Amino acid sequence: MSTLRYFASDNNSGVHPRILDAFARSNVGGVAAYGSDQHTEQAVNALKEVFGPKARPWFVMLGTAANVLGLKSMARSHHGILCAESAHIYCDECGAPEAITGAKLFPLPHHGGKIRLEDCKATLRLREDVHHNYPAILSITQSTEYGLVYAVDELIAIRDFCREHRLFLHMDGARLSNAAASLGLSLKQISADVGVDVLSFGGAKNGLMFGEAVVFFHDDLGHDFGHIRKQHMQLVSKMRFVAAQFQEYLTNDLWLENARAANRMAALLADKIRDLDHLTIVYPVEVNALFVRMHKKIIAKLNERFYFYTLDTADAPGLPKDWQLVRLMTSFNTTEEQVCEFAAAIKDCEKIF
Amino acid sequence: MSTLRYFASDNNSGVHPRILDAFARSNVGGVAAYGSDQHTEQAVNALKEVFGPKARPWFVMLGTAANVLGLKSMARSHHGILCAESAHIYCDECGAPEAITGAKLFPLPHHGGKIRLEDCKATLRLREDVHHNYPAILSITQSTEYGLVYAVDELIAIRDFCREHRLFLHMDGARLSNAAASLGLSLKQISADVGVDVLSFGGAKNGLMFGEAVVFFHDDLGHDFGHIRKQHMQLVSKMRFVAAQFQEYLTNDLWLENARAANRMAALLADKIRDLDHLTIVYPVEVNALFVRMHKKIIAKLNERFYFYTLDTADAPGLPKDWQLVRLMTSFNTTEEQVCEFAAAIKDCEKIF
Amino acid sequence: MSTLRYFASDNNSGVHPRILDAFARSNVGGVAAYGSDQHTEQAVNALKEVFGPKARPWFVMLGTAANVLGLKSMARSHHGILCAESAHIYCDECGAPEAITGAKLFPLPHHGGKIRLEDCKATLRLREDVHHNYPAILSITQSTEYGLVYAVDELIAIRDFCREHRLFLHMDGARLSNAAASLGLSLKQISADVGVDVLSFGGAKNGLMFGEAVVFFHDDLGHDFGHIRKQHMQLVSKMRFVAAQFQEYLTNDLWLENARAANRMAALLADKIRDLDHLTIVYPVEVNALFVRMHKKIIAKLNERFYFYTLDTADAPGLPKDWQLVRLMTSFNTTEEQVCEFAAAIKDCEKIF
Amino acid sequence: MSTLRYFASDNNSGVHPRILDAFARSNVGGVAAYGSDQHTEQAVNALKEVFGPKARPWFVMLGTAANVLGLKSMARSHHGILCAESAHIYCDECGAPEAITGAKLFPLPHHGGKIRLEDCKATLRLREDVHHNYPAILSITQSTEYGLVYAVDELIAIRDFCREHRLFLHMDGARLSNAAASLGLSLKQISADVGVDVLSFGGAKNGLMFGEAVVFFHDDLGHDFGHIRKQHMQLVSKMRFVAAQFQEYLTNDLWLENARAANRMAALLADKIRDLDHLTIVYPVEVNALFVRMHKKIIAKLNERFYFYTLDTADAPGLPKDWQLVRLMTSFNTTEEQVCEFAAAIKDCEKIF
Repeated sequence: MSTLRYFASDNNSGVHPRILDAFARSNVGGVAAYGSDQHTEQAVNALKEVFGPKARPWFVMLGTAANVLGLKSMARSHHGILCAESAHIYCDECGAPEAITGAKLFPLPHHGGKIRLEDCKATLRLREDVHHNYPAILSITQSTEYGLVYAVDELIAIRDFCREHRLFLHMDGARLSNAAASLGLSLKQISADVGVDVLSFGGAKNGLMFGEAVVFFHDDLGHDFGHIRKQHMQLVSKMRFVAAQFQEYLTNDLWLENARAANRMAALLADKIRDLDHLTIVYPVEVNALFVRMHKKIIAKLNERFYFYTLDTADAPGLPKDWQLVRLMTSFNTTEEQVCEFAAAIKDCEKIF
Repeated sequence: MSTLRYFASDNNSGVHPRILDAFARSNVGGVAAYGSDQHTEQAVNALKEVFGPKARPWFVMLGTAANVLGLKSMARSHHGILCAESAHIYCDECGAPEAITGAKLFPLPHHGGKIRLEDCKATLRLREDVHHNYPAILSITQSTEYGLVYAVDELIAIRDFCREHRLFLHMDGARLSNAAASLGLSLKQISADVGVDVLSFGGAKNGLMFGEAVVFFHDDLGHDFGHIRKQHMQLVSKMRFVAAQFQEYLTNDLWLENARAANRMAALLADKIRDLDHLTIVYPVEVNALFVRMHKKIIAKLNERFYFYTLDTADAPGLPKDWQLVRLMTSFNTTEEQVCEFAAAIKDCEKIF
Repeated sequence: MSTLRYFASDNNSGVHPRILDAFARSNVGGVAAYGSDQHTEQAVNALKEVFGPKARPWFVMLGTAANVLGLKSMARSHHGILCAESAHIYCDECGAPEAITGAKLFPLPHHGGKIRLEDCKATLRLREDVHHNYPAILSITQSTEYGLVYAVDELIAIRDFCREHRLFLHMDGARLSNAAASLGLSLKQISADVGVDVLSFGGAKNGLMFGEAVVFFHDDLGHDFGHIRKQHMQLVSKMRFVAAQFQEYLTNDLWLENARAANRMAALLADKIRDLDHLTIVYPVEVNALFVRMHKKIIAKLNERFYFYTLDTADAPGLPKDWQLVRLMTSFNTTEEQVCEFAAAIKDCEKIF
Repeated sequence: MSTLRYFASDNNSGVHPRILDAFARSNVGGVAAYGSDQHTEQAVNALKEVFGPKARPWFVMLGTAANVLGLKSMARSHHGILCAESAHIYCDECGAPEAITGAKLFPLPHHGGKIRLEDCKATLRLREDVHHNYPAILSITQSTEYGLVYAVDELIAIRDFCREHRLFLHMDGARLSNAAASLGLSLKQISADVGVDVLSFGGAKNGLMFGEAVVFFHDDLGHDFGHIRKQHMQLVSKMRFVAAQFQEYLTNDLWLENARAANRMAALLADKIRDLDHLTIVYPVEVNALFVRMHKKIIAKLNERFYFYTLDTADAPGLPKDWQLVRLMTSFNTTEEQVCEFAAAIKDCEKIF
C-alpha cells in the first residue's frame, strides 16, 4: 500500500470534477489562440465582476509565475522587495524573483508568516544611499504560508503605510479563497478594497488543474503585461482551457465551496487532536493548514502510513528536544473519513510513550 | 456567423478527445506534486522508449518555454545562438531567448526556414574577438516555420558541422511529429540519431492541451534542468496532468495518427488548389502547412468567411504587386469537408477577376 | 621596429598632457568618494553649461557602459531598440545591450552608418502583437561608425519621427565632439537642441584616459540613474579623477581643439591619397575616419609597417575582387608628419603593380 | 573650514604619487587598445609572479565589478552564493550580484565579518529540493568589512569544507594587501596557497586611482572571462593605464608599503584612544579599520570637525543606550599628525560629560 497523502499539500489533490466537465464543454471548434477567444473574454469579465471594475486580470500558468511576473510589472532591477522571510517568493521559488526581475528581496522577520510594519519601516533608510537596492515594493501573502489570515484592519494599516511611503503593495493570493472563506468576506473586500496594487489569484491549490490570474488594481500598472507574460513564457496557446477553469471556478462560487470545505476539514482535524499529548498546535487554525509540534516518535509512526511535511528545525526555534514541526494541509476534497482516520492514527501514537 | 478558423493555425484546434479521457483517468487520489509522482515517472519512461536510453526528458508548460529553457541550459550570456531569421525563437517569442539567457541571436538567411551551413560558418569568425558574442549554439526547426522538413542527410551534415566547430545543436521540434510523419521515420531517427543535443518536443500543435518536453541527448547537458525549470516558472504542481497527456500521446502512436491526419489534409488542400489561377503554392507541401501567394482580392473575399494569416510582404520579397503571402495550416482534426469547403471558396474567387 | 599604429584607432592614442596635469591638481587631500565631492559637482555644472540647463549628466567609466546604461534607463526587457546594423551597440559590445537590458535590438539597413526613417517605420507594425518586442527606442550614432555626420535637419526629422511614434531617442556620441567640430556647431546644438533624450558623451576617443558622461534631456528619464549606475558597476570610488578630466576637457574647449585636430588630419590624409590608383575613398571624410577600398597588395605592403583595421568583406558588398575595405582613423595627436609618412607609403605601393 | 575626512574611508584618499608618475611614463606613443598592449602583458606577468604560475589575472575597473564578474564566472542563475550578511557583495553593491548573475545570496550570521562553517553547512540541505537555489559558491572577505583577518588555518578549514562539499571559494580581496601586511605573509600565501578559486584583488583602497584584478586559480574557471568582462562593461580601451598602475603597485612592494602604513596608523589610533572613557573598541584592530562604540555626544562633537561613518544601530545589537558604533579607517597616506589631532579631539570630548 502506498503512502497516503491526505494532508501533504493542497496541490497533491486532483482536480474538481466540474473543471474536467468545463474542459469538455470548451473543446468545441477552432478558436483564436493566445487569449483572443471568447472563452477568455468571458472569464476575464467574470473576474472583473468579482474584483470590481478597476480590476484588470491576466492569466498565467503557475503560481510562481503569477508572483514573479506581478513583481516584474512593478520592479526595476535596482529595487528592493520587502517580504516575510517565510514568503513563498523568498523561500520556495528557486530565486525566480531575483533572476527574473533582477531586484533584491529583503526578508523581514515574520509572525506566523505576517510581516510587521516597524520592520518594513526600518528598511526604508536604505533608500538614502545608492549602494543599496531601493525598497519599492511590499509583498504579503494572504493567507500566509503559516495559515494565518490578515484581518481587514491589518490590511488597511499596511495599505496606509505603503501609500505614505510610496511602496507598491503586492499580494500573493495563492490561497486567497481560503482567506476570504475564513473571514466571511468577498475576494474583493480583501484585495481591491484594501489597496492591493497587484494580486496573484490562485486556483491550483483549490481544485483547478493549472492556471492563475494576475490582477492589476493600480491604474499605472500592468499595461505592458501582455508583453511581459509572453516574454516570460506564460502565454499558453490554447488559453480557452485556462479560461474555462476560471469561469467554472467563479460560477456558483465553486471557489468558496472548495475553500470552505478545506478550511472546515482543517478545523475538524484541529479539534480532534488538540487535546492529545505529545503535540501542540502552534498557530490558530484559520484556513486549511495546521502547524503542529510533535514528538519525533509520533512523526515516525505516522509516516509509516501517511506522507506530510516535517519542517526543518531552523524554521521552528524553541522546539523541545525530540520534537519537530509538521505541516498538515487539507484540500477541497479532503473527507471527514480521512480526518477521522488520521486523527485516530495520531491518538493511537499515545501508546508509544 | 463567426469566422471559421479551419486553417488559421494548428493551435486553434481543441484537444484530442483521448487527452480529456486521460485527464479523467489520472484524476484519482492524492499524488505527490511537482513531478515526483508515478504518472510522471511513467511518461518519462515512455519518452525514453521513444527517444532511446540516452534521452533525458523534462516537461515544461509551453513551446516557448521548451525552446528558451533548452537554450538556457546550454548558453552563457556572452554566447551567440545561430538560427534562421525566420526561426520562432528569433521572431515569435517576444525576445524571450535574449531576455532569459542574455545571449544574442544571430539571424541567418533562410530558405523555406532552413539554414545553410556556409552562413553559419561565416559567423564563426566572430569568435576571434571579445567584442562579439561567441557563437556557441545552432538552433534549427524541424519541420520549419515554412513547412519544410530537413532530410536525414541534411541533419547529418549539420551535426558534423556542429561537432567540427564545437557548436551545440538545438532542435525546435514544435512540429517534430509532422516531420517524422512526413519522412516516414521515427521521432528518434530525426533527433537522437542525428546528433541533436537538446530537443523541444511539442504536443500542443498536435492535439494536446498544454505541455512540452525538453529532451537532452548530450551527456553534459541538462543535469541542472530541474532548477532551471523551477526558476523559470515552468514546474507545474499538478504535473500528473502533463504526464497523462504525454503518456496518451505516445500510446498506440496517437502523435503519429494526428500528424499524419494533419499532413494529409494539407496535401489534399494543395492538390485541390494547385492549378487555380491567381495563386501559387510557394514551397513543397511536406507537412501541415501551405504557403500560398494569392492575389489580394482573393484574400479579401476569403476573409469574409475564413480567418487565416497573411504575412507581411517584408517576409516575401519578390511578390507580384497586389499579391500577398498567406499561411494555411491544417490540424489533427481538420476534416475533408473543411478542405473541400475552403478549396471551393477559393475556386469561387476566380469569378472576381 | 614594432608596427606603427598611427591610424589604427583613436583609442590607441595616449592621453592629452593637460589631462595628466589635471590629475595632479586634483590629487590633494581627502574628499568624499562616489561623486559626492566638489570636483564632481563642478564638472557636472560645467557639462550643464555646455548642454543647457535641462541636461542632467552622470559619469560612467566606459563608452559601452554609457550606451548600455543609457538604454537601460529607458528600456524594459520586452522593448525593442532600433539601430543601424552597423551600430556599436549592435556589433561591438558583446551583446551587452541585450544581456543588461534584456531587450532586443532590431538592426536596420544603414547607409554609411545612418539609419533611414522608412526602415524604422516598417518595424513599428511589430507593436501590434505581443509575440514581438515592442519597438520603444531609436538609437543613432553621431558621428557614425563610418565617419558620417547627421546634419541638423536630418536630426530634426528623426526627432519628429520619434515624437510622433513615441520612441525615445538615444544618441551614441562617442565621437560627438568630432561631429560638432565638423558641423561647426556646439555640442548642444546637435544633441539637446534636436530632441535627443539620452546622450552618451564620449571622451576617451578624444584625449581622455577613461570616463564618459550619460546626459539625460528628457524630463522623465534618469531619475534612478544613480542606482542603475551603481548596480551596473560603473560608480567609481575616486570619482574626482573622472570629474577632473571632464572639467579640463571643457576648459578652453579642449574637446574642440582635439576634435578639430583629428578631423583635419583625416582630411589631409584624404587629400593626399584621393587620386592614387588602386584605392577609392568610400564615404565623404567628415570627421576623423577614412574608409578606403584598396587592393589587397597595397594592404599587405602597408601592413609591414603600419597597423590598421581591414574590414571583413561581409561589411563591404560590391567590392572588386582582390580589394578590401580598410578603416583609417586619426586622433587628437596625429601629426602632419605621420600623415605624410603614411601617404607616401601608400603612394610607394603603386610600384607593386 | 570644510570637514576633515582623515578617517572616513580608505577610498577618500587620493592617489599615490608614484601612480601619477607611472601614468606619465606610459603615455608614450600609440599602443593597441583593450589590453593587447605590452604594458598589460607586463602587468599580467607581474601579477603571475606575485600569485604563482597558476594565476590567471584580468583587469577590471572597479571593486564591485571584480566581485560581481568573478562570481558571474562561476555562478548559474539557479545557484546560491553563501556569504556573511555583512559582506560587501550582500550589503553595498546595490544588488549587482543578484542582478548580474541572477543567483541568490544566502546571508549568514557573521562574527566581525567572518563566516562560520556550521552556518554554511546548514544551508547545504537546500540542495535537496529544486524549490531553492542550489548553494554552489562561498564568498569570504579578506580582510573583513569589520577589519578582521582570517588566519591561514581558518582559510585552510574553509578550503577543505569547500572541497568536501563542492563549493567554489571566492575571496573579496579589496583589502587583501592590508591582510597580508597584518599577517606578515605574502599575497599568494593567503589566496592561491589556501585554495581560493577566484580572487578580487583590489588597489583603489590602497593608493591606486582605479582598476582591480580578478585572479583565477581554479583550472576550470575564467576561460571565458574576456567575454564576460567585455559584456559587462569592464573592458577599458586604454588598458595601458590600468596596467601601469598595477606594475607600479607591485614594484618594490608599493602595495605592502602602503598597506603597512595604513595598518600602522590604525594601530596608533587605537593605542591613543583605547583607554578613554565613553568609548570601546569593538574588534581587535588587525588592519586599517577601527570599530568603536562611542557615546553619541562624542560623535556629535567630533562631527563638527571630522567626517566619519556612524553605523546604524541595526548593525550593532547590544549597544548601550545613547551609544553608537562608528567606523574609523586609515589610509596609505594617513599621517601621525592626523592621528594625534583626532585622538586629541576625542580626548577633549571627555569634558562634555
